[in-house]
Amino acid sequence: MTSFVTHLESALDGTHLPARTVQTVHEGRPLWVRYDLDAVGRAVARDDLRGRSSGLWRYRELLPVDDPGCVVSLGETTTPLVDCPRLARALGVRRLLVKDESRLPTGSFKARGMAMAVSMAKQFGIERLAIPTAGNAGGALAAYAAKAGMSCTVLMPEDTPEVNRYEAGLFGARVFLVDGLINDCGALVREGAERVGWFDVSTLKEPYRIEGKKTMGLELAEQLDWELPDAIFYPTGGGTGLIGMWKAFAELSALGWLASDARPRMFSCQADGCAPIATAFDEGERFARAPDAPRTEASGLRVPVAVGDFMILDAVRESGGRAMAGAESAIRPRMRQAASLEGLSLCPESAVCLEVLADAVAQGHVGAAETVVVFNTGAAQKYVEVMRTELPRLDRAAPDWDALGAGA
Amino acid sequence: MTSFVTHLESALDGTHLPARTVQTVHEGRPLWVRYDLDAVGRAVARDDLRGRSSGLWRYRELLPVDDPGCVVSLGETTTPLVDCPRLARALGVRRLLVKDESRLPTGSFKARGMAMAVSMAKQFGIERLAIPTAGNAGGALAAYAAKAGMSCTVLMPEDTPEVNRYEAGLFGARVFLVDGLINDCGALVREGAERVGWFDVSTLKEPYRIEGKKTMGLELAEQLDWELPDAIFYPTGGGTGLIGMWKAFAELSALGWLASDARPRMFSCQADGCAPIATAFDEGERFARAPDAPRTEASGLRVPVAVGDFMILDAVRESGGRAMAGAESAIRPRMRQAASLEGLSLCPESAVCLEVLADAVAQGHVGAAETVVVFNTGAAQKYVEVMRTELPRLDRAAPDWDALGAGA
Repeated sequence: MTSFVTHLESALDGTHLPARTVQTVHEGRPLWVRYDLDAVGRAVARDDLRGRSSGLWRYRELLPVDDPGCVVSLGETTTPLVDCPRLARALGVRRLLVKDESRLPTGSFKARGMAMAVSMAKQFGIERLAIPTAGNAGGALAAYAAKAGMSCTVLMPEDTPEVNRYEAGLFGARVFLVDGLINDCGALVREGAERVGWFDVSTLKEPYRIEGKKTMGLELAEQLDWELPDAIFYPTGGGTGLIGMWKAFAELSALGWLASDARPRMFSCQADGCAPIATAFDEGERFARAPDAPRTEASGLRVPVAVGDFMILDAVRESGGRAMAGAESAIRPRMRQAASLEGLSLCPESAVCLEVLADAVAQGHVGAAETVVVFNTGAAQKYVEVMRTELPRLDRAAPDWDALGAGA
Repeated sequence: MTSFVTHLESALDGTHLPARTVQTVHEGRPLWVRYDLDAVGRAVARDDLRGRSSGLWRYRELLPVDDPGCVVSLGETTTPLVDCPRLARALGVRRLLVKDESRLPTGSFKARGMAMAVSMAKQFGIERLAIPTAGNAGGALAAYAAKAGMSCTVLMPEDTPEVNRYEAGLFGARVFLVDGLINDCGALVREGAERVGWFDVSTLKEPYRIEGKKTMGLELAEQLDWELPDAIFYPTGGGTGLIGMWKAFAELSALGWLASDARPRMFSCQADGCAPIATAFDEGERFARAPDAPRTEASGLRVPVAVGDFMILDAVRESGGRAMAGAESAIRPRMRQAASLEGLSLCPESAVCLEVLADAVAQGHVGAAETVVVFNTGAAQKYVEVMRTELPRLDRAAPDWDALGAGA
């Protein structure tokens, strides 16, 4: 098979670039992958998907891989869309669905982008990958690189969560801690790309991670029988997922696969300790400024500079949604709320989405009759620092049965 | 719908007990759930499954829930069966498939048993659950109990992995640390059942966790187009999964769904620091003795006394397989091997399976032309103690590009 990709297109100025060669960015800004959607529509009908295997590769006609032999897969499966009636009631919306991305390889949504980036790297014969990360991206890239037999170097801030620090090394990547933020790590990877030939897999620095993340939108549409929800709440660090989903909805619309023209309002959610996109939204700007002292325990949101800032803000505005900052202090209580009401272990970044949703309902941006989807982008279990707590000891010799019986 | 369950049956002496009332054990030993398989065969054909949703509930005719309204689900999905050609080559078998159970809710295979136990508890109107755990079971039970709105008390040894300690509390369970082993925690839960009315969800102390675990065998058969592998390597703590799969194969055979009569040889894998089942196997015993000083960093295998010892040993022997102990010292190297060759993050318990497989190949118990399935029962990322390592720091001001370029 050859993919239906026609060309790449600069997201900032529309310049066309050829697709079937290694591309990175155009004048420092990201590239869109464009498809011959008419040909896609002739090649596959919506209902043809039914008989296909679970997971993102079922949408192959809307993906960039030309050679099926280059697909690098760790067994991605379609992530569940979990109905959360008690949480919906608590937050004041009619219906709340959580798309649980923690169920992908390495326990986070990063698997989608990396599956695509590494498959395309394989197609282009690239063998040495490198990435800056403050969270789940490093482990995900390292896992796919291992499966593909490529080398992988991961640079991460010293305050990256412990599990993220170790998992990349487990997969055989070379991992280094850097005294700085993710953007400092990113600068080193750029330098390494020039000096020692690393291929830079940073967010939006190559064109294909968006295409992987796009599949969140494709799956969501198919799971909802092609009827999109009223609003989507999505945690925004680099923003690839939000950008990718918005692109997916446009492609599905062009294909005529959607049940109606209505598209969801996209809510870009950040923590108030690091909220450049929310600030730019409030100020009516298309490009974001880096905050002075970014601080949040939602490590995936500790991204002061997003190279796709304008793409995020364009999508949010086109959709009629908003970019909002939730209170840092709400992260742990919101994690506990989702876990104790629905049995879901939301990562801190997605706990922020619940806080933003509560704010959006309070401010009238979301109505009580609406259906809302929140993305859980990773497993709480990967954030041991945030989960850590003192536990009581039970005296085996003399358990206090009155107290034990009263409580539960 | 009413289930096809006809009765429960004592695994030790065959005594029949009625199914549609709360049951626990019979004279201290576990119960089998029995079905009218003729009626199942009339109600559903193998190929009817194709159109059903992914996940364990697709096998509902072989499951005990009578009232679909009692199903408690966190969005279980069919776990992937990942082809591992490089690991197969390294270990000397023709084909090695890893069934990656880390992709279930809460990141482990425990979700299967708990989904079933909690659904049945709901059907019986039980509201207060309790469990002893040394690993992933506590978090899984706590998550399903939360979804069901039940109370949950979890007792765990002080050396239970950190993530397991915290996740149960995140889901709103009451968690207590106990100075002792899992069996000591189990004794306290039994006492609490009598004193304060807890329902004891310990391994094999209620009949339905086996039925949940059985779905590993059902999925495996369906994924392999009803042609079972030559051998299965499965980490054995309490043994419910191995017992459940063996039961699943018998039920599928009775239904006539299997492509042939051949069933896999079942290899029960333990770490040599705590290997009561392997020892009993070697000694030709049907019941196991508790080891003196059980020690292994594969926390899920730190189970000195398994109430279903004879059920495990019966299944292993009937299958023509073996119970074997792998070297404790091999756990971390085997985790790194699987991760770096295949991008899979095996838990320590499943790393033991790789070591046992290598031993079994060396000893001629598995042939070079065979197809082997290894179960990854949980995500490595939940074992931060085992993953922890010192990472090098990279000096931002003066990176050593020669060294960086040479390595990758």
